[in-house]
Amino acid sequence: MMPTPTTLRCGLDLGGTKIQAVVLGPDNRVLGMHRRPTPTSDGPAAVVAALAESLRAAASEAHVDARALAGAGVGTPGAVDPRAGTVTSAKNLSGFDESVPLARLLAQEVGLDVALGNDVGVALDAEALIGAGRDFRSFVGVWWGTGIGGGVVIDGQRWLGRSAAGELGHMVVKIDGARCPCGRRGCVEAYAGRGAMELRARELAADGCRTKLFKIMEKKGLERLTSGVFAKALEQDDKLAKRLVNRAIEALGAGLASAVNLLDVEGVVIGGGLGTRLGAEYVAKIADAMQPHLFVPSRPPVVRVSELGDLAGAVGAAMLSAEGRARPRT
Amino acid sequence: MMPTPTTLRCGLDLGGTKIQAVVLGPDNRVLGMHRRPTPTSDGPAAVVAALAESLRAAASEAHVDARALAGAGVGTPGAVDPRAGTVTSAKNLSGFDESVPLARLLAQEVGLDVALGNDVGVALDAEALIGAGRDFRSFVGVWWGTGIGGGVVIDGQRWLGRSAAGELGHMVVKIDGARCPCGRRGCVEAYAGRGAMELRARELAADGCRTKLFKIMEKKGLERLTSGVFAKALEQDDKLAKRLVNRAIEALGAGLASAVNLLDVEGVVIGGGLGTRLGAEYVAKIADAMQPHLFVPSRPPVVRVSELGDLAGAVGAAMLSAEGRARPRT
Repeated sequence: MMPTPTTLRCGLDLGGTKIQAVVLGPDNRVLGMHRRPTPTSDGPAAVVAALAESLRAAASEAHVDARALAGAGVGTPGAVDPRAGTVTSAKNLSGFDESVPLARLLAQEVGLDVALGNDVGVALDAEALIGAGRDFRSFVGVWWGTGIGGGVVIDGQRWLGRSAAGELGHMVVKIDGARCPCGRRGCVEAYAGRGAMELRARELAADGCRTKLFKIMEKKGLERLTSGVFAKALEQDDKLAKRLVNRAIEALGAGLASAVNLLDVEGVVIGGGLGTRLGAEYVAKIADAMQPHLFVPSRPPVVRVSELGDLAGAVGAAMLSAEGRARPRT
Repeated sequence: MMPTPTTLRCGLDLGGTKIQAVVLGPDNRVLGMHRRPTPTSDGPAAVVAALAESLRAAASEAHVDARALAGAGVGTPGAVDPRAGTVTSAKNLSGFDESVPLARLLAQEVGLDVALGNDVGVALDAEALIGAGRDFRSFVGVWWGTGIGGGVVIDGQRWLGRSAAGELGHMVVKIDGARCPCGRRGCVEAYAGRGAMELRARELAADGCRTKLFKIMEKKGLERLTSGVFAKALEQDDKLAKRLVNRAIEALGAGLASAVNLLDVEGVVIGGGLGTRLGAEYVAKIADAMQPHLFVPSRPPVVRVSELGDLAGAVGAAMLSAEGRARPRT
């Protein structure tokens, strides 16, 4: 039986490089999806048009008219105010330094209710509800990508603290250590963020260190060392890629062990571009890197790779829409 | 009006060096107290006798017959099973390596119901309820003593995880860093635990480093560099004491900032022997040391010194007794 259109919701994961859209059916099955690059110039209007295009394309794949969807959710970087429907300080998005009323702009464009959430937060919610975290009452999620995002689920609920909880990437694993893109020193992200890894690779290559990383990047027609470039270089046994990834794993292991020693959670879920791309083999290496630091080594948490992978953010964003509609308007 | 005896409860804080007893009245006021050294030989029987003696002395100071108390609670190091009333692996207590049925033994000795809890845990509960944490919906507590104990309060409740949450002392602040008494490397406690600080002081003194620490210790008739010895040496501007305390503060700052970046709690409460003894001036230094690592530096948590000080453990243990009695027997 075909589900009625009003039970279908669209989720949009708005990243600095790409937009991922899914249309989610009853029981949270993905019925349609679409991916496209994020416009890197022309400001919020261009981003909103691209989001609308992806929404319509995903709806079309799900054989539903976009205007018949029950609603849409957007997971976005930056500081999100879900009530106001605004995003601020999303530095990787063109024209999003100041506050952008993204929910209203997209709602006007597509004629649907639009809910906003933090990109890593909604991805984690999706993993908690239907993904790798569904068996855990408590877990720590780490999104291993350009930066290191994260989140903490306590008693089945994401813990937000005063709003900014989950910055696992900015736990300190080496006092006076490497400079982090955040400007501080010795954070997990200073070693494990894809951005920091790329910076280090460029420095070492400039110093004469031999590596296939940049050849692979050029062959792929890319300008950055994406997760795919690192994965390919590891396959080809590239020494520098291995060295940088091992350093990242060491930092993630120490940071996650610190989080586990503090919270004694049941599980750890690892997602994000690098986490998803490198997959189970490397997630097992992170679990090994945690082990020597665990205060109760006989009882490590279960460490799992994200089950929703690249779609976690978009699926979580779609769920956001469902939540939004379930709540009575106040 | 004199409170009726049945509203009075005794709390006992069982430490490796001393036993602290309080008798708590209605509104959790301390009506009597007693302190004595912990027997360091002769096993559990001697410890139980000493606990009973302290309980009776504190009751006497509160002008109440010990047998008329509503109950007693004991905060103890080691692994506590509150249901079974047993303690295991309390390595600083004579004869407590194996499981000791401490609740039953003390109950037989004093003719009262006895409840058990973890020493740092009950101290933190007391701070949460009537001490420095009472205004916070969420906070991290760190007990800066011989070791570094800790705890996490989330939504007004201590979060235990799978039972072992709160090991802030074993968060990693320096990968490949100093050896910790726990056997691992780079933990907060490796730099900030009084035990580790003493070890380092002895090493440096043996290497010819000049310090007043050991002279002060001997003058006080002590065999260890207690919190009081460190405090005195700081007053006398001792360079080694300052260096070790600064190193401890740096590690505590990084560990606490990591916890705050992960959990975005409202507050931090610092207690324990060194925390209480060095007090507000040094707690402010810890807050300063956190600052450069905070992901949201514009909104640091409130950092407070323990209000219950040396009595936090005993007061929390007394509350344990009240809780125990409030619950219906199952």
